[in-house]
Amino acid sequence: MIANTPQTPYYAVIFTSLRTEGDNDYSVTAEKMEELAQQQDGYLGIESARNELGITVSYWKSLEAIKNWKLNIHHIEVRQKGRATWYKQFKVRICKVERDYEFEK
Amino acid sequence: MIANTPQTPYYAVIFTSLRTEGDNDYSVTAEKMEELAQQQDGYLGIESARNELGITVSYWKSLEAIKNWKLNIHHIEVRQKGRATWYKQFKVRICKVERDYEFEK
Repeated sequence: MIANTPQTPYYAVIFTSLRTEGDNDYSVTAEKMEELAQQQDGYLGIESARNELGITVSYWKSLEAIKNWKLNIHHIEVRQKGRATWYKQFKVRICKVERDYEFEK
Repeated sequence: MIANTPQTPYYAVIFTSLRTEGDNDYSVTAEKMEELAQQQDGYLGIESARNELGITVSYWKSLEAIKNWKLNIHHIEVRQKGRATWYKQFKVRICKVERDYEFEK
């Protein structure tokens, strides 16, 4: 559930969003996109949570890996549907993870 | 709800966690901590969501602002309670936000 990312540095894409009403195939598409992302070179993991606000953080080996995923044709189509149908508002932040630490009981 | 952050670059702290059972004053303390964080120099905003997994992303002007918040005495006490009581597991990632973009209907 908490992504098992490698040693820093690596990259994170923070996707924060407010959804429109209704599912409109969102859930099934989100699952498919996660499966596709996992097959991309340089994919490291994903973490998601949603209440009113949704936050999805995907982790990547490099900026190039993020760019390649952005250029994936299925991902391009789905992003168009996101803007047209699923999202009222979203923000995407491309980050370099410089340091991390973990706690486990 | 989506943090209104300034132009890049700025910093993000991604806090991903799995909670223990029961509230144990978690909710009231989380609210208090958010209020305290807002008073810190260099605080830019916060975004939170939780299902089984919780994700909280706080945004900061600089690494120094993040460090000063880490050294806040109330925050230190609360982090001890977090490890002892509220969390089964968490991961903290300190990131530099290099690029961002937004969509709004």
